[in-house]
Amino acid sequence: MSESTTFSAESYFATQPAPSFLEEDVHKVREFVERHARAGRKVVLVTSGGTTVPLELNVVRFLDNFSAGTRGATSAEYFLKAGYAVIFMHRQFSLQPFSRHYSHSTHPFLDFLEMEQTGAETETKLDGVGSEPQRVGPHISVKLSERTQLVEVLAAYKAVHKAGTLHTLTFVTVNDYLWLLRAVSQELSVLGRNALYYLAAAVSDFFLPRQKLSEHKIQSGKGSLHIEMDQVPKILKPLVSEWTQGQAFIVSFKLETDPSLLVPKARTALARYGHQVVIGNDLHHRKHRVVFVAPAHASRAAQSDDAEGFVETWIRIDTNAPPSKEIEEDIIAELISRHQSWINHTSV
Amino acid sequence: MSESTTFSAESYFATQPAPSFLEEDVHKVREFVERHARAGRKVVLVTSGGTTVPLELNVVRFLDNFSAGTRGATSAEYFLKAGYAVIFMHRQFSLQPFSRHYSHSTHPFLDFLEMEQTGAETETKLDGVGSEPQRVGPHISVKLSERTQLVEVLAAYKAVHKAGTLHTLTFVTVNDYLWLLRAVSQELSVLGRNALYYLAAAVSDFFLPRQKLSEHKIQSGKGSLHIEMDQVPKILKPLVSEWTQGQAFIVSFKLETDPSLLVPKARTALARYGHQVVIGNDLHHRKHRVVFVAPAHASRAAQSDDAEGFVETWIRIDTNAPPSKEIEEDIIAELISRHQSWINHTSV
Repeated sequence: MSESTTFSAESYFATQPAPSFLEEDVHKVREFVERHARAGRKVVLVTSGGTTVPLELNVVRFLDNFSAGTRGATSAEYFLKAGYAVIFMHRQFSLQPFSRHYSHSTHPFLDFLEMEQTGAETETKLDGVGSEPQRVGPHISVKLSERTQLVEVLAAYKAVHKAGTLHTLTFVTVNDYLWLLRAVSQELSVLGRNALYYLAAAVSDFFLPRQKLSEHKIQSGKGSLHIEMDQVPKILKPLVSEWTQGQAFIVSFKLETDPSLLVPKARTALARYGHQVVIGNDLHHRKHRVVFVAPAHASRAAQSDDAEGFVETWIRIDTNAPPSKEIEEDIIAELISRHQSWINHTSV
Repeated sequence: MSESTTFSAESYFATQPAPSFLEEDVHKVREFVERHARAGRKVVLVTSGGTTVPLELNVVRFLDNFSAGTRGATSAEYFLKAGYAVIFMHRQFSLQPFSRHYSHSTHPFLDFLEMEQTGAETETKLDGVGSEPQRVGPHISVKLSERTQLVEVLAAYKAVHKAGTLHTLTFVTVNDYLWLLRAVSQELSVLGRNALYYLAAAVSDFFLPRQKLSEHKIQSGKGSLHIEMDQVPKILKPLVSEWTQGQAFIVSFKLETDPSLLVPKARTALARYGHQVVIGNDLHHRKHRVVFVAPAHASRAAQSDDAEGFVETWIRIDTNAPPSKEIEEDIIAELISRHQSWINHTSV
């Protein structure tokens, strides 16, 4: 006795409540986009991290999609370096550009700070003319071995903050994500072809409509747990054809654990939604190789064109490359080049 | 046509595979416990963060329990301060003692580092007799406003590392958690009454047996998603009566969103498993009040004893208290006092 409903994007937004923070977030995005549009800067929306599907209104349990946010956070840095303004729309607490180098679990920053024992237990410092000397405590410094990398990261971080080219938004649930994506795309539409979408977030295919959520924590002790979820509407369709009016350059991602599904599923997505690139990655090799699948007319060169008019381009880095070499550097360079071609050829 | 099975702890461990890292982890725990047993130190196992239930063998989707790990990470600090040796068994990437003060999202450490522009772009420093001068880059220092707190956190962190009183273990899935808990409890049993269990992790009540997992990512596009999960065995029962032989002082937690369920559920748990304390917290007020429920014979004083022989003790902090006042300070003080009484009264 299944009572699952099929939601179109339209019926989704008509029946599911908007998050409370939406209006405020959109207002800030508008200011950011207007500022960079005036400066003639290209803007990329990077989505990153996994979405949740709460099982209860007062959330204790939720379904999640595996993603630390590494791809998105790393890519955002390379877009910034290339002069793009970046809207970084990410799962709360997932990795972020710059600070990702010092995740508190894998490279905890407390480990590379040292306290210097000076003669006195505390130093004092004059805080300006006429002010009292202030106790500032023992001097803290960064270990020599960490300085070089930290200086580089910190300099890039400070430069980006000064230039105001990074704007951060957070989501938790798939509902937050869908509402934000639609609203941000409407703001980006003023940029026409200067807008790029880099949709790296791991978005749930399923959700529980608000109307089916139980208010309190589901009680155990009553045997097994049954969950039945509805399909999330295919949001790429209205994104491509309505919200961006076919102007923006749109890159989506496919993650599969069975590599044989990667290219066929990428082609199906392109045929169905009509966007520019699908980047396919399989779970176990995503740091060393990805495949770009694109319709021939949106690709620069037809490396391996075929009867159906799709081009596949593999980007690989050597598994023995130094850890400082990140595949995102090559991915972003390739995309920026394709985006420029897209801008230059106004009619496709 | 439900095919759910009811697992006892015994049938669970007989049918579900042990995590690959178990043996190595247990070996390190054994060394840690032996060292502190020799020193006559009390040892607490703190569990922290949520467990996952993967829906696929190559995990893309999983069920999760809401928990940032704040309670566990904060409590571990107070146990360390009181002289306990702490085994901190936590969800990978959840908050940890000390570094929790600088979560990269809410208080990012890059924001409080400053680069000092000296005359030259880089400093050099002699790295010892006969070595070449080494480029160390511009000097990096900590903003004045952050120094006082950082010095305090850093000093405590370095002292704990020097004393070797903190041992960290990580889990991701509920299966990791269950295997680790059983193995660690066997190692802790040599401590008898000197062992304390502080089970603050948010453990799933449901799981998918390995035998029901699909190998690859569940494909969407085939309508709605149906998940049916089995109940996780009630692990507190064998923990109390078998693995710890009734010797250890065991504290479990109940989190509810409906406050009226809190005390009744805590009493049911105590009656069923026979351990020492249930700490009840409701989702929305857990930072300002919790309730200790304990059998009268395991409580120091009978503040509100009742016919069924349970004692309820509320611990509250003022909602207007300064943010530096943490409820965990009072929770741990109360527990340490109860643990000492438990040690002193060998026969209950």
